[in-house]
Amino acid sequence: MSQNEVIIKFPNGDEKKYVKGISLEEIAQSISSSLKKKSVAGLVNGSLYDLKRSINENANIELYDLNSLTGIEIMRHTTAHVLAQAIKRLYGDVVQLGIGPVIENGFYYDLDLENNLTVNDLDKIEKEMNKIISENLEIKREEISRDKAKAIFANDPLKLELLEDIPLGAVITVYRQGEFVDLCRGPHLPATRYIKAFKLTHVSGAYWRGDSSNKVLQRIYGVAFASKEALADYFHFIDEAQKRNHRKLGNELELFMFSEEAPGMPFYLANGQLIRNELEVFLRKLQYSYDYKEVRTPIMMNQRLWERSGHWDHYKENMYFSEVDDQSFALKPMNCPGHMLIFKDKLNSYRDLPIRMAEFGQVHRHEFSGALNGMLRVRTFCQDDAHIFVTPAQIEDEITSVLKLIDYVYSTFGFKYEIELSTRPDDYMGDEALWDKAEASLINVLNKLNYEFHINEGDGAFYGPKIDIHIKDALKRSHQCATVQLDFQMPEKFDLTYINEENKKVRPVVIHRAVFGSIDRFLGILIEHFAGAFPVWLAPVQVKVIPVSNEAHKEYVEKVTQQLKQAEIRVELDLRDEKLGLKMREAQMKKVPYILVVGDRERDFQTVNVRQYGKEDSSEVKLDEFINDLKQIIVSRSLN
Amino acid sequence: MSQNEVIIKFPNGDEKKYVKGISLEEIAQSISSSLKKKSVAGLVNGSLYDLKRSINENANIELYDLNSLTGIEIMRHTTAHVLAQAIKRLYGDVVQLGIGPVIENGFYYDLDLENNLTVNDLDKIEKEMNKIISENLEIKREEISRDKAKAIFANDPLKLELLEDIPLGAVITVYRQGEFVDLCRGPHLPATRYIKAFKLTHVSGAYWRGDSSNKVLQRIYGVAFASKEALADYFHFIDEAQKRNHRKLGNELELFMFSEEAPGMPFYLANGQLIRNELEVFLRKLQYSYDYKEVRTPIMMNQRLWERSGHWDHYKENMYFSEVDDQSFALKPMNCPGHMLIFKDKLNSYRDLPIRMAEFGQVHRHEFSGALNGMLRVRTFCQDDAHIFVTPAQIEDEITSVLKLIDYVYSTFGFKYEIELSTRPDDYMGDEALWDKAEASLINVLNKLNYEFHINEGDGAFYGPKIDIHIKDALKRSHQCATVQLDFQMPEKFDLTYINEENKKVRPVVIHRAVFGSIDRFLGILIEHFAGAFPVWLAPVQVKVIPVSNEAHKEYVEKVTQQLKQAEIRVELDLRDEKLGLKMREAQMKKVPYILVVGDRERDFQTVNVRQYGKEDSSEVKLDEFINDLKQIIVSRSLN
Repeated sequence: MSQNEVIIKFPNGDEKKYVKGISLEEIAQSISSSLKKKSVAGLVNGSLYDLKRSINENANIELYDLNSLTGIEIMRHTTAHVLAQAIKRLYGDVVQLGIGPVIENGFYYDLDLENNLTVNDLDKIEKEMNKIISENLEIKREEISRDKAKAIFANDPLKLELLEDIPLGAVITVYRQGEFVDLCRGPHLPATRYIKAFKLTHVSGAYWRGDSSNKVLQRIYGVAFASKEALADYFHFIDEAQKRNHRKLGNELELFMFSEEAPGMPFYLANGQLIRNELEVFLRKLQYSYDYKEVRTPIMMNQRLWERSGHWDHYKENMYFSEVDDQSFALKPMNCPGHMLIFKDKLNSYRDLPIRMAEFGQVHRHEFSGALNGMLRVRTFCQDDAHIFVTPAQIEDEITSVLKLIDYVYSTFGFKYEIELSTRPDDYMGDEALWDKAEASLINVLNKLNYEFHINEGDGAFYGPKIDIHIKDALKRSHQCATVQLDFQMPEKFDLTYINEENKKVRPVVIHRAVFGSIDRFLGILIEHFAGAFPVWLAPVQVKVIPVSNEAHKEYVEKVTQQLKQAEIRVELDLRDEKLGLKMREAQMKKVPYILVVGDRERDFQTVNVRQYGKEDSSEVKLDEFINDLKQIIVSRSLN
Repeated sequence: MSQNEVIIKFPNGDEKKYVKGISLEEIAQSISSSLKKKSVAGLVNGSLYDLKRSINENANIELYDLNSLTGIEIMRHTTAHVLAQAIKRLYGDVVQLGIGPVIENGFYYDLDLENNLTVNDLDKIEKEMNKIISENLEIKREEISRDKAKAIFANDPLKLELLEDIPLGAVITVYRQGEFVDLCRGPHLPATRYIKAFKLTHVSGAYWRGDSSNKVLQRIYGVAFASKEALADYFHFIDEAQKRNHRKLGNELELFMFSEEAPGMPFYLANGQLIRNELEVFLRKLQYSYDYKEVRTPIMMNQRLWERSGHWDHYKENMYFSEVDDQSFALKPMNCPGHMLIFKDKLNSYRDLPIRMAEFGQVHRHEFSGALNGMLRVRTFCQDDAHIFVTPAQIEDEITSVLKLIDYVYSTFGFKYEIELSTRPDDYMGDEALWDKAEASLINVLNKLNYEFHINEGDGAFYGPKIDIHIKDALKRSHQCATVQLDFQMPEKFDLTYINEENKKVRPVVIHRAVFGSIDRFLGILIEHFAGAFPVWLAPVQVKVIPVSNEAHKEYVEKVTQQLKQAEIRVELDLRDEKLGLKMREAQMKKVPYILVVGDRERDFQTVNVRQYGKEDSSEVKLDEFINDLKQIIVSRSLN
């Protein structure tokens, strides 16, 4: 091989010779001009390279376009530089630049500037950025000496500070685009016009380098995407997510509240409690049909029980403690130990198994106050917990049955979901053969059910393999809710036994299982999933009855309301001294599934005028018929 | 009036002259010999007198027979003396007598004796007691000097100790019957044959004078009644109470358990939890129809909230504490403060009142471990709590509505009940006029409802008057469950307001109200009330299906079971390899309301053979008909 050549190996295994010093851009061009056009950077022997940087040795390479995470992150990084350049152009030397990293969906840049930037300023900066992009400035990497760097940033004290942190001997690089130069490791886009779509979003304060003893800088945030459409989609998503925000809706629909007297501990208002009760009744009935037995165990138990279960060793930082009879008690963070005590209280035979022990158990788990997030991250929640005690031979059937139950529940809410199977970790405990068999069982079950699933090798709990289920909400956000975990350790720790067919005491296997996971969090997810417009069976008020005239139709609307109540439909009659239009708007704001407007005609014909939430038109229906149809919709828990 | 006469005044106001030194017995005889015959003692100017004791001054008198509490207690006291006399006769000087007081339903006597007494000994002692009774020894009171007393009891060290405690100058009396003499204040029956019916029950150890640094004596317990029938009734009651004991039945019917890991904190087993859920659903539906709004508040809240509510000052000894974010939190002993926070969270207008806020709230209250008693006295329970926020003008209607709801609930269980009204105590807080009005309102409501009630003057809480309701169970035992309390203080403490008709901020009144009181305790009472044979709607298993032949009738019993399940009836099918008779006996032991036995005939005619719990005969019914009838019984919560 000539000394002037390098061998380039492509991800598909192909190799090709190029002249030494060739760039990724030229390699891309050598394959196709379309590849060159869409490439923005690449990987060279494991290091990120700018598209134009010279390759001087044999290398494995990979090219990135804006559809890859790395590609889009490089674009976001370059957009931060363009932001900095625009600021310098607009504010000159009175502005000091800090750092400008990539974050989720975008980037920010910290800067030290006397004036507080406003939304108007952001508009101006955006315009300048667009100008820089249209100038299509080439972005050039330069390796320079520390002294040269110090000279370049002589008037940039924040940059000089960053320079101090670069270890001696490390390569120092700067990136130039037009008149602008920044201290940066890179890589970057080849030129500014490679930036496809961006938007500055807001400005806030941030301590320089996150240290509260430092000065507060201004931080300009922006987002950037590979296309104008993707940017629009993002804002649509943000908009939808804000409209659906469960804290906002929780307040507007009077579902729940929080108080400083109990941070992270929900107070359910009447409407929220109605939904909560429906969720419990739904699962309770379903579990009854699956032969679960519901139990209820104390909120707090002696510390020694938690020592025995292992929670003391592994979880005490997240537990709350109290004192009873001068002994330390812990508020339960999980229901398992209580269920183990119930299992142990009786002599069990193989004929009794499986025992499916369920509880709607209120657990307490400490979270840092900063981590709290409405219903999605709380300090106390009700877990729809179950522990199923099985013989090893029953594992497969039982897991199948649990997965069917989960599928039924999630389908009821219209949730799609993804399945992850986590297998034996390095620090697993228990019998290897049992693990092998258990993992094989889980895979077998998933295959038999024709479920797609992803295997997380070595990601199981030390006590057994598990299946986690991630639901996708209406905005395609993923939430881990249900879990099915095999546990070989808990039966050991609590010395659980049953009498097998040979009249010998042997250990059962425990399956931990939750469907909602946390009812509280699940409710939060449901609020956002349905944007507060719950299916009828969950709606706190299912029907709002509004008379055209309070006087003329009072008798009939009261009869309508009474009949709905008798049919156990949650109905509200609006007899306030307000206009019909206002009453209807308010009912719509509260997202009541059905509004019945009742006037002369309806009274005379014993009908109701039905307007379903979210639909434009209304229709006249016989009252009896409406009630019967609605009962059917409610009982079947239909999604409308 | 002659110096030899005394004027005796009778309870009815009549006065009569008698010769000085006359006894109650002679006075009774002077009225009628039947009165003499039934009288056992009396009150002379407020002091208890033996029947034969001389009356030497003018006196108001009252005679007691065995139908009065005082009369029967005197008989029980004399029976204790007869017990002591029998022991002395049987064991002689090796036994030292302690004290022999009256207790509920009977008496005991403490004695110091080397030998441990057995049931056989009790028989022997009882025989001797009966002999003493039939000897009809006259019982004579004697006032003696301290020295004489010391001489009499020279060989009775325990009696000498008691003598020491009699203050100098006090009259010392002894009672003699035949050869036996005891240091005693009296009074006693005139003679031993006045004792009508007694029975020694058991013997146990007790520290002399209750002081654990003293010697343990043997304590013989007995019961005594005014007639053989009353004695038999008592043992029947004890027997029934034991059979109905909720702890025993709780275990046998697998309703609940307790664990050393959480003393006083119930673990609900599947059967108990089913009943509990039924109770909640029952009240929840009822409350919904009464326009209550159910909420749910956190288990623990910041200590400052409890300081504000006054629980910290008045109740902290009974509260459990924990720490959250380095601040002291208390586990809620009551739900009030949480509900006050919810009320405060919104601006309320007079149009919104009354607000009926209900919660099935799990509260924690410390009890000494010695005071714990199954479900009847626990450390954590679920209160069916409600706080009703009203204008003063709404108090009367609202209390009426609460009392109607309570009546509906108690009638459903077949409970009779008694009502007590407690009025303003000395240390009342708040406006006197408001108190007057509130008390008048409560009395007015009770009168309008035609309820009998007892007034406990000055027994109200400092924050308002209250109505307590005591239910009578099947054994006529009384249990305080429901309570309705007016509260003028909580709205002050939490600065609660609503906007009244004049657009001014004014204070609402709060009504605290519970129906079950504690669901856990109520369940305990229900278990004893129904002796575990619950009405169908509450029965954990409502129907047990048993085939005559497991093979021949398998298909049909499975169909029967399936149809019952579909009708949401809790059914169990017994397909075990056991004899029909055993299966039926077991189902009866579990007090299952309906046993369906199914053989050839039933299969061929699509019927079931129905045997109702507690009934001897069975009848053949069409399956459909049985299901329809049973559904009706369940839905109507009939008492069968």
